[in-house]
This record gives sequence, structure tokens and C-alpha cells, in this order.
Amino acid sequence: MSGSGQEPDDASAPGAPPAPARRRGRPARAAAETGPGARERILAAARAEFAERGYDKTSVRGIAKAAGVDAALVHHYFGTKEQVFAAAIELTFAPALTMPDALAGGGADVGERMARFMFGVWENPVSRPALLAIMRSALTNDKAAAVLRGLIERRMLQRVAGELDVPDPEFRAQLAAGHLIGIAMLRYVIKMDPVASADTEEIIAMVAPALQRYLTQP
Amino acid sequence: MSGSGQEPDDASAPGAPPAPARRRGRPARAAAETGPGARERILAAARAEFAERGYDKTSVRGIAKAAGVDAALVHHYFGTKEQVFAAAIELTFAPALTMPDALAGGGADVGERMARFMFGVWENPVSRPALLAIMRSALTNDKAAAVLRGLIERRMLQRVAGELDVPDPEFRAQLAAGHLIGIAMLRYVIKMDPVASADTEEIIAMVAPALQRYLTQP
Repeated sequence: MSGSGQEPDDASAPGAPPAPARRRGRPARAAAETGPGARERILAAARAEFAERGYDKTSVRGIAKAAGVDAALVHHYFGTKEQVFAAAIELTFAPALTMPDALAGGGADVGERMARFMFGVWENPVSRPALLAIMRSALTNDKAAAVLRGLIERRMLQRVAGELDVPDPEFRAQLAAGHLIGIAMLRYVIKMDPVASADTEEIIAMVAPALQRYLTQP
Repeated sequence: MSGSGQEPDDASAPGAPPAPARRRGRPARAAAETGPGARERILAAARAEFAERGYDKTSVRGIAKAAGVDAALVHHYFGTKEQVFAAAIELTFAPALTMPDALAGGGADVGERMARFMFGVWENPVSRPALLAIMRSALTNDKAAAVLRGLIERRMLQRVAGELDVPDPEFRAQLAAGHLIGIAMLRYVIKMDPVASADTEEIIAMVAPALQRYLTQP
């Protein structure tokens, strides 16, 4: 973060070999493109583009333009559009991915904690549009659905299941998660009253016992 | 359904006023366009177009072309694109709209009947793609979401709620429906195992008690 536009790694060895491949052919723009924060700018741009346009209409070229870098740099850092999407939703999902920690240890209120966690993420005005965008992309594109599936499975449900002392813990964790996903669909996507305008505490009070049963009842 | 291409209503009064507005200006195509079945052909085409392209990319012009009629006839029968969509999803939803009848009378197995009903519709290879298309449209377009909301609300949940002997019956009916919608998202959209490949009986056995509680427990 020196502000000089020179990457520290490149400046460290006088007489070192030529700059890395990603700089070749566009020296004039190299500093802006690969300077500190380029990767983060690309990710932020990807997140915004996917959220606004959906998976199908978003291009690596468009992401690069929004981030002020060359498309080749996006490929260099992330690979294909599918991989850029995976990195962008992993960033978006970061708060949601802490759910297994929130549920660790189980207990008589684990169902309530799970419901409370879900609403904490969805009621947040920053994360809600991003979550909606991800659901939209998954519904309209199979590759996007596969990326989302992998993320939820590996990073969330397998870890939640590991905490549960019930038969078929993954199946149980998915039924509980499915319940919450459906409530989110009604409240935030279809926006159907009374669920859409109900107090979250009122919903939690009704839903928690159903989750508790999935997560703990033998 | 005489097959003559002449609408019975128009033929009933000799010396009657000129033919209805929809025929004016294209007499040569009138028979094919307004003959018996034109309305049904338009609806079938609309259903297929919305399912294949989603709400945003479907046009009244495209629907008319697929049905072999003039776009003006589509407007004449249905009005705006939003109204064509409403008619098309009402047709698609026809089997689902019988759910209130299936739940009438409540009883100790009403939760199980609701779950069984949902899987009956979703496991059907004809109705599943249409349901997926509707969810996709609702997720990507606010007008489509409003149409779906109106249909589920007026034609399904209000009637289910009318059958329930619990406090806040609409809220309860929505929580139960939301649970099933979420399971459908996991199984048919995100396709996450084990829920995606589990036997439906196995899922019904787990989910029915949760639904039963929403629908009957005071």
C-alpha cells in the first residue's frame, strides 16, 4: 500500500529477470493493473457485475472494464468466468460460511440459533442483494448452480453435519437448510405477506422447533 | 369446435353488425387466426416461450409467431405480456391449484398429504420444467414475481388457510409452503445430495411432522 504503483515483490531484486508474464505487452498500464489491490478490485467488480446482470449476461471483459484492468489479468488471477464467479460468491458468502461455528456444540437451542443466523445474513442490507443475485444465477445457469452447490456443501453443510449427533446428519442438515431457503424465497423474493412483513422474531419462534427436530431428534 | 373456422357466436345472428375488431384488416388470415383453438395455441406457445427463454427474453411477438397468429390477436385475447404470463402460469399451475381440495378437512395426516401433493407435482416430468421456468422468471423479474405471488396467494394459500383451525392460518400455511418450496429448490434446482437423490418417501417421512405442526398445532 505504498501508493507508488510499484509492486514490492518486483522491486526487491535489482537486476532480476523480466517482470512476470501478466505485464508483458502493456508496460504503460502495468502499474495500475497489477498494483496493490488489483485482485481485490477485480473481485469487487465481479461481485457487482454478477449481482446486476446475472451469470449469463456477465463477461470477463465486462468485469475487467469495471475494475479498470485488462481481461487477461482477470484470467491470470482467477481463470475462467466460472472460476471468477466461484471466487466472487465465496467472498459474498463469507458471512454465511461462519454458520457451522455458530451452531457448534448443538444444544437445546441449536434450531433457534440456525434460524437467527439465517435472518442475520438476509436482513443485512449489504448481503441481501448479493444473496439474491446468487440465487438468481443458480436458477438460470447450471454452471452457476454447480458452483453454489459445491460451496454450500463443502463449506457449510458438511461441517454442520459433523456437529450433529443424529442418523443421516447431512440429510438432516439439508432439510433444515432447505426450510430456511424456502422461507427466504417467500420473504425476500416472492415477497408474500404475512411472511414478508412479519417480525423476524415471530418467524424464528415458529420455525426454530422444526429445525431443532431435524438437527437433534434421533 | 365445428372445424369450419367460423366462430359460433359470430354466425348466430344473420344481419348482425360487422365481425369483431380482431378480424378487421386481415380477412385472408382470419380463419386460421381466430378459428377454434387459436386461444389454446397462443397459451401453449406462451407457456413454451416463457419456459424456454424466461420472462425478460420472451416477447408477445415471439409468442404470436410460435402460435402462427398475429401479435394483435395475442393482445386481443390476453392484453399485455404480463397478462399473457399470468394466463400461461395459471395453466401450468392448474394441477398445483387443486392442493386446497387435497388438504380439505385437515386431520392427523394433513402434513403428509401436503408433502405428498407437492412431490406429485414436482416429480411429474411434464410439470417440473414448467414450474422451474416460473421460479426462474419470478427470481429475475419483479412483475413476474408479482404475478406468481398473486396466484399462489389467492388461488392456493388463502383457500388452504380457510381449512385450518389454528391462530394466524395464513402465516402457518405460508411457513409450511415455504418449507416445501425450499426442499424443491435443493432437490430440483441446486440438486444437492442426499436430498436430490433421496427417495421421496424418505423425505415425506421427515418433513410431514414439521408441516403437521404448522397446520394443526394451536
